[in-house]
Amino acid sequence: MIKVTFLPEQRNIEVKKETRILDALNKAGIDIDVPCGGEGTCGKCKILIVKGAPPAGSVEKKFLTDKEIAEGYRLACQTKLIQDTIIEIPSEVRLNLKEFLLSRAKGDVCNTSNVFHPDNNLRKIYIELERPSINNQVSDWENIKDVLSQKKINNEPVPANLSVPLQILQKIPILIREADYKITVTLFQNRIIDIEKGDTTDDNYGIAFDIGTTTVAGYLINLITGKEIAVVAKSNPQIKYGDDTISRIGFIKKANHGLQKLQEEIIGVINEIITESSRKAKIDKKNIYKSVFVGNTCMHHILLGINPVNLAPSPYIPVIRESLNLKAADISGLCLNQTAEVFILPNISAFVGADITAGIIANSLYKKGKAVLLVDLGTNGEIVLGAQGELLACSTAVGPAFEGARISSGMRAAKGAIDKVKIENDAIVYRVIEDGKIRGLCGAGLIDIIAELLRLGIINRSGKLLDRKECSSIVNKEIKKRILEGENGNKFLLAKGEKTLKGKDIYLTQKDIREVQLAKAAVNAGIKILLREAGISAADINEILVAGAFGNFIDKKNAVRIGLIPDLSLIKIKNVGNAAGKGAELALCSDEKRLLSERIYKQVNYIELSSNPDFQKEFISEIFFNKSK
Amino acid sequence: MIKVTFLPEQRNIEVKKETRILDALNKAGIDIDVPCGGEGTCGKCKILIVKGAPPAGSVEKKFLTDKEIAEGYRLACQTKLIQDTIIEIPSEVRLNLKEFLLSRAKGDVCNTSNVFHPDNNLRKIYIELERPSINNQVSDWENIKDVLSQKKINNEPVPANLSVPLQILQKIPILIREADYKITVTLFQNRIIDIEKGDTTDDNYGIAFDIGTTTVAGYLINLITGKEIAVVAKSNPQIKYGDDTISRIGFIKKANHGLQKLQEEIIGVINEIITESSRKAKIDKKNIYKSVFVGNTCMHHILLGINPVNLAPSPYIPVIRESLNLKAADISGLCLNQTAEVFILPNISAFVGADITAGIIANSLYKKGKAVLLVDLGTNGEIVLGAQGELLACSTAVGPAFEGARISSGMRAAKGAIDKVKIENDAIVYRVIEDGKIRGLCGAGLIDIIAELLRLGIINRSGKLLDRKECSSIVNKEIKKRILEGENGNKFLLAKGEKTLKGKDIYLTQKDIREVQLAKAAVNAGIKILLREAGISAADINEILVAGAFGNFIDKKNAVRIGLIPDLSLIKIKNVGNAAGKGAELALCSDEKRLLSERIYKQVNYIELSSNPDFQKEFISEIFFNKSK
Repeated sequence: MIKVTFLPEQRNIEVKKETRILDALNKAGIDIDVPCGGEGTCGKCKILIVKGAPPAGSVEKKFLTDKEIAEGYRLACQTKLIQDTIIEIPSEVRLNLKEFLLSRAKGDVCNTSNVFHPDNNLRKIYIELERPSINNQVSDWENIKDVLSQKKINNEPVPANLSVPLQILQKIPILIREADYKITVTLFQNRIIDIEKGDTTDDNYGIAFDIGTTTVAGYLINLITGKEIAVVAKSNPQIKYGDDTISRIGFIKKANHGLQKLQEEIIGVINEIITESSRKAKIDKKNIYKSVFVGNTCMHHILLGINPVNLAPSPYIPVIRESLNLKAADISGLCLNQTAEVFILPNISAFVGADITAGIIANSLYKKGKAVLLVDLGTNGEIVLGAQGELLACSTAVGPAFEGARISSGMRAAKGAIDKVKIENDAIVYRVIEDGKIRGLCGAGLIDIIAELLRLGIINRSGKLLDRKECSSIVNKEIKKRILEGENGNKFLLAKGEKTLKGKDIYLTQKDIREVQLAKAAVNAGIKILLREAGISAADINEILVAGAFGNFIDKKNAVRIGLIPDLSLIKIKNVGNAAGKGAELALCSDEKRLLSERIYKQVNYIELSSNPDFQKEFISEIFFNKSK
Repeated sequence: MIKVTFLPEQRNIEVKKETRILDALNKAGIDIDVPCGGEGTCGKCKILIVKGAPPAGSVEKKFLTDKEIAEGYRLACQTKLIQDTIIEIPSEVRLNLKEFLLSRAKGDVCNTSNVFHPDNNLRKIYIELERPSINNQVSDWENIKDVLSQKKINNEPVPANLSVPLQILQKIPILIREADYKITVTLFQNRIIDIEKGDTTDDNYGIAFDIGTTTVAGYLINLITGKEIAVVAKSNPQIKYGDDTISRIGFIKKANHGLQKLQEEIIGVINEIITESSRKAKIDKKNIYKSVFVGNTCMHHILLGINPVNLAPSPYIPVIRESLNLKAADISGLCLNQTAEVFILPNISAFVGADITAGIIANSLYKKGKAVLLVDLGTNGEIVLGAQGELLACSTAVGPAFEGARISSGMRAAKGAIDKVKIENDAIVYRVIEDGKIRGLCGAGLIDIIAELLRLGIINRSGKLLDRKECSSIVNKEIKKRILEGENGNKFLLAKGEKTLKGKDIYLTQKDIREVQLAKAAVNAGIKILLREAGISAADINEILVAGAFGNFIDKKNAVRIGLIPDLSLIKIKNVGNAAGKGAELALCSDEKRLLSERIYKQVNYIELSSNPDFQKEFISEIFFNKSK
């Protein structure tokens, strides 16, 4: 065994010789950002070995400078520990998104505490049982049923064909006598969910979850009032096994018990959210009787312990799309009342999951009358078009550009990221998340700078970052000075080293622009295919709803300028925040909305772009930027 | 720690100082007969301490002679180990009933391999799935549903609203591809029970269980042919915690995790029976998809982990009577296919359990036309009267006399028990179970000897065992010589010491006769009350069905003579063997019969004798024996 010390927290752990630093970090419970999942293809997991650095390997030589290697920098995914080692974790590689994610869990339209109409069948009834005697030898369960049969719920009789889970039967003989025959019964439709001592009818809660690849958000709701009483969002801890669903599937394929590990990670964070939200709202989590889960199809499968390996290579096959009604006990390790109802909303396809189904419900895309486009952008872009009651959906590979990967100074929208950029005369004005030193450029900032350079003609329609001399004479001289020659084409100086955490200049490179072009071409080609299938044009769209955390932070005008979303009046473009979470909350509070989701997923006409003959053509034609207006 | 050696098997174990010998035996896995459950009230758990005997306690002095104590005999339930000890377990205290129980599991009417009409909805269907492609991205589950929807079961379409458990979803993505899309689906109604590779449609089995207080019997059945393919019976291992349900409930009340221990014991033996019967029938137990359980209400509750404590003191309240439809996974530790259907038949009252419900089904007591009496005698006597479609039932405390307890030389019907007795001129002729040396007198033998002594006038109507001089002069002199003076009244010499295992004479005592009188009075009073409630007399009874292992072995004529059952033409009295087991098999094979049981239990008019004003009166009037005919 080897002793490893992690700085600055001075955490000591022991690991076997030949353990990778990445695995040692996992063991120590320190989360770092590993966009490629530890494959050695992104070079982002850079750590500093203060003592005990082994020689750098070929992959490290590719991503690190000679100076960095000499200083002791290595890649955590590439370096094996062979002796006692002291390692410093630079703050820029740490995952420290908690506060930020929480703010992101809510969009424009739900930034206040939501209140939903609670039209669901989760009911609690206080009853006083008969006292059995030798002349009335009623069994405990029949006693409960008999008394319930005389009660009404919302003026309707309690269902006669009540069913009771074994766990409840096991506790009633002792419980009802300790309660002196005064109990509260929790019912969902004809199913007994719980029986408690005394009158607890006021304590009736549910929780909705949106399981994202990056973020897991839980929404705790009072099912009597319909009021949202706590929201907790956390980073998805599976991130250490890869940033996107494809790397997670890769991990499942190659690791021992990979699926089980990922399932345990997600259930672990769900449990944390249950505990934390209950504490915040000052309720007892045993009074949570119902939950609704949405997520993309891969997260859905992993949550349920269903192997997602066939989602990934063509022909992209999910195991199940339809909704599931489970009990908490069915999901091993889930710290909810074991008899609580668990509803898993339905998926639409391998890459259009239950989160999108929820988004459709939250934004009433199924309603006739208007043409509405719902766009949810991440590594994967999901696009849904609702037109005259018809629903069409596709999924398109946006790539990780907007999440920071494959961009020279790219990073997630976390502390230290530039998320707004504006060029004013000779100066570049930018906003840094949580202020402080600059660490990099996030998706929203990336869109802004490209839009600004397009506006100034520094980037041309084909996407080329022009030479100083190629630029129009109108461009301010100081700005022109920022154009430098790079390894592959030009680069544009965004921030000088003095303002950055690592003391290095931050650039937008020609390659960065190409990545954004690929992403926006993918999105636009997808939208075009959907519009064509629906037989309408972009001008017919009444509304574009930008969903997801990303949507909250982008500048709509700039998104239109770079051609990421169709060129409509800005008033028609709305950020709808976490539409998936809102849809999950609706399904939790309203049985009608939940049942609607169980019908809607079948109505969606899913268009597979990879086999669509027009897609490649549209993709290529969308690579260019639009003429600036 | 102390070392204990058990002879003759030379088993060594280590236990903590102050451990009771009974607990050490349990730890060593040696089962002995402890009728009182270790309370020190029966004196039956007599073991011989070869080395390291501690002084005898007061309870031991009550049950053991001075000579026995000097030799090293002690009671296993009373003696604590304080030093290294060598203990010999006499064969007469061992539980070694296996072979015997097996023979008992079948009665007159089902002593050949049974074949039932298999009208149940457990179906297996072989299907070949579509191969998904980029142009047909059907999810695995929809693929299965689509292909099934084109199939017919018994000329009827497969139900459309199929439900699938999570465990099956978890295995299909890998399984169907390894199976090259050729699979067999097992269905019960609209529920998927299993999915297997290839064509396994011929392998379709179910198992029925009768969980008795003493014996657990399992009946493995081919659900396609309805043929019984293996029967395995085993001693209920809970016996070490007490002979009857009352002692088991006592154990649950006082022991730590007592309920859990008893549940583990019963599930352990059920699992052994599943494994053993599968091996006998040469089938794979994973192909058992359905099971039916019956048992008395206490065994029913313990099996399900439901606390039975309220069954015992008045007012005798069960937790649940109605039937339950569970999955194997609901019963923790049950080694069946976790998605297999488990049906628990309904109870009638705290002391008339699902075993009696099954007996009613097996013997069609619900049918109109005849008056039929079903009598199941154990420590508890359950009596059901079916008359003109009306069903009445009661439970009466027979006491453990017929199972050997409280009888001077009493024992269970096991090896060495006298189970048939006849007096011929000057000789006593008897049969010993499995021959060999006599160990004691079982219930059937007890009835015989009392009937013979009644016939000869050696016992008079009031139950007095007469003096030699009081006997009629017709009685053979040699027989008269067997009448000796005992401590409390006379005693009758049944077998001399030279023929017995322990070398001691075996007697029938006056006290033994009194025990039998109490038992037969209880049964008869119960029958009378039922007849009165139904408004008929004993002469109106068309049939008496004697159920249970005991019924198989008693001499009907003698049972009538001592007045244990009403005096009817012998042809009207039938041994129906294990009616409970047969009823469970019927419910397993036939959904109609199972559903019938779910209705029938509610139709039974249960008469509580303890609060019935006539019962005590009838009981006293039935204490006397009938006039001999």
